[in-house]
Amino acid sequence: MSNWVRMIAALFAVAVSEGAAMAQSDPLPSWNEGTIKNSITDFVARVTTQGLDFVPVAERIAVFDNDGTLWMEQPYYFQLAFAFDRIKALAPTHPEWKDRQPFKGLFEGDLKAALATGMKGLLDVVAVTHAGMTTDEFSRIVEDWTKTAQHPRFKRPYIQLVYQPMLELMDYLRANDFKTFIVSGGGVEFMRVFAEDVYAIPPEQVVGSSGVVKLERTADGVIKLIKDAKVEFIDDHDGKPVGINRFIGRRPILAFGNSDGDQAMLQYTAAGPGPRFLGLVHHTDAEREYAYDRQSHVGKLDKALDEARERGWTIVDMKRDWAVVFPHERLAIQPAR
Amino acid sequence: MSNWVRMIAALFAVAVSEGAAMAQSDPLPSWNEGTIKNSITDFVARVTTQGLDFVPVAERIAVFDNDGTLWMEQPYYFQLAFAFDRIKALAPTHPEWKDRQPFKGLFEGDLKAALATGMKGLLDVVAVTHAGMTTDEFSRIVEDWTKTAQHPRFKRPYIQLVYQPMLELMDYLRANDFKTFIVSGGGVEFMRVFAEDVYAIPPEQVVGSSGVVKLERTADGVIKLIKDAKVEFIDDHDGKPVGINRFIGRRPILAFGNSDGDQAMLQYTAAGPGPRFLGLVHHTDAEREYAYDRQSHVGKLDKALDEARERGWTIVDMKRDWAVVFPHERLAIQPAR
Repeated sequence: MSNWVRMIAALFAVAVSEGAAMAQSDPLPSWNEGTIKNSITDFVARVTTQGLDFVPVAERIAVFDNDGTLWMEQPYYFQLAFAFDRIKALAPTHPEWKDRQPFKGLFEGDLKAALATGMKGLLDVVAVTHAGMTTDEFSRIVEDWTKTAQHPRFKRPYIQLVYQPMLELMDYLRANDFKTFIVSGGGVEFMRVFAEDVYAIPPEQVVGSSGVVKLERTADGVIKLIKDAKVEFIDDHDGKPVGINRFIGRRPILAFGNSDGDQAMLQYTAAGPGPRFLGLVHHTDAEREYAYDRQSHVGKLDKALDEARERGWTIVDMKRDWAVVFPHERLAIQPAR
Repeated sequence: MSNWVRMIAALFAVAVSEGAAMAQSDPLPSWNEGTIKNSITDFVARVTTQGLDFVPVAERIAVFDNDGTLWMEQPYYFQLAFAFDRIKALAPTHPEWKDRQPFKGLFEGDLKAALATGMKGLLDVVAVTHAGMTTDEFSRIVEDWTKTAQHPRFKRPYIQLVYQPMLELMDYLRANDFKTFIVSGGGVEFMRVFAEDVYAIPPEQVVGSSGVVKLERTADGVIKLIKDAKVEFIDDHDGKPVGINRFIGRRPILAFGNSDGDQAMLQYTAAGPGPRFLGLVHHTDAEREYAYDRQSHVGKLDKALDEARERGWTIVDMKRDWAVVFPHERLAIQPAR
């Protein structure tokens, strides 16, 4: 590079960084001002500034639970809604389901009867909705569902019921050279279908529960990957640190969850050396979303809430801390500046 | 941005890209000119240039076998060398091994007697060298080994016996916005210790075989991940497409291997739509490295070689196509320019 190019480059770098600093003065516009928002920006400033708490880029691993942390999980897990919708779509070709639980209950809207079949019924549902097809076929089915199915209360596609403040948080972390991962009890092949579009998280950064996948070959030797009905790995509770070790191979420095299923992930993240950020989304907003914690059958938050209070983890009070909940609210209000 | 900044930025961008183009005129200096080198640069040009064969950045997934593809695998897999060295280090505290195979054979240099114990003997070796400790402890042991152990023929640390042309190829792909992954039959927790330093591949982009990892808690509740002696997943042969699906979740567009263990990975990669690159390293250089293929007990290349010839995959002839084999040779010769 000649000297004049160097000089212009230096000038340009200053101009650009000033411009960028102005444009990004609030990277978290959907978070209300206060302790919680400050705890996030303080942490990021600490680990990205040269000094005692500095963390090299390669170690800036951030993990996020999905159900109840990045998107809604009420009135029941969205993947269960997918399975129920799928059963209804398949029903015409399966007349034998009409008189058999858990299918009968699903058709008749008697969820209680369906759920009474317990784990056996759930595995029946998984077997017919998540197995017996190639991984590519499954992806297409899920993709179609995300485009057509609607949440019963909010009357919007499920993939629009993601939390705008969490999208901003993940963008903010990535802008600060964090690598963001999903670590969820949900099915990995289910989440990977939309995670890139919705969360900007590529498939290889999605960790989740999985079924066995078998390799088969067609008559002319082409490899097919077939989803089997057997459970391979449950990425929940104590499974989360195991999943993080298996898929990421490095202890995160930031973990965000919302339920007791995330407690082990937060504990594991907390136990590493150096600065750590542990966050819980507390669902306190029955009006804009839902209010639930210790007694909920979905996303129960009990022991993890106690531990978070004891240890001073960051507890996000949805009602108090989030200016908006969903992206469509953000679009509807005035831009922050 | 003001107009003058925009103008200077545009000027600057032109100057920089011209400078970069000159400096990078040969991104693969350790590859001899010819059909093979051209097949690589042609492929990269095709998928990165707007047009019919263009591949979006997110789909530029490149997978590499490790043993025999990125580093040496003779006279036997380096991870086996690690296990043998480890057994020798542990021997003083295990007097009972003195008269028991496969340990006895290892101590006496009678590899044949040791290997005669077959899979059972191998699992005994794995159990004492790869299990019964935390994942962190195992990482430290491997790290120490990479610093001290030396290859019997080349008298260098094993991690220096990586292939300089493949390092350049991976750098070149990453410079063209590919994401590079290791997909190896080797142990994932073994490779992750050095993959970032040696290959610039972070832990989360290493796919490999694994043992079961159990979560335990200390008396005061701290989570420990303990390596168990049970095999969880073998990432070899038909396991490779399964591993790619499980860990990456997207079909690669480029795959490089060197043995029949990589054949399924190449087939799976080849079966996707659009442009594909399938490569095999053929070990043809007994002088600088080793010469072996169909008859080798390590890295056997037989059926995959036939298929590669039939289908016109790229077969790298180490002797013909590589100007240098190892990084230390590169440092010893004149820079290309």
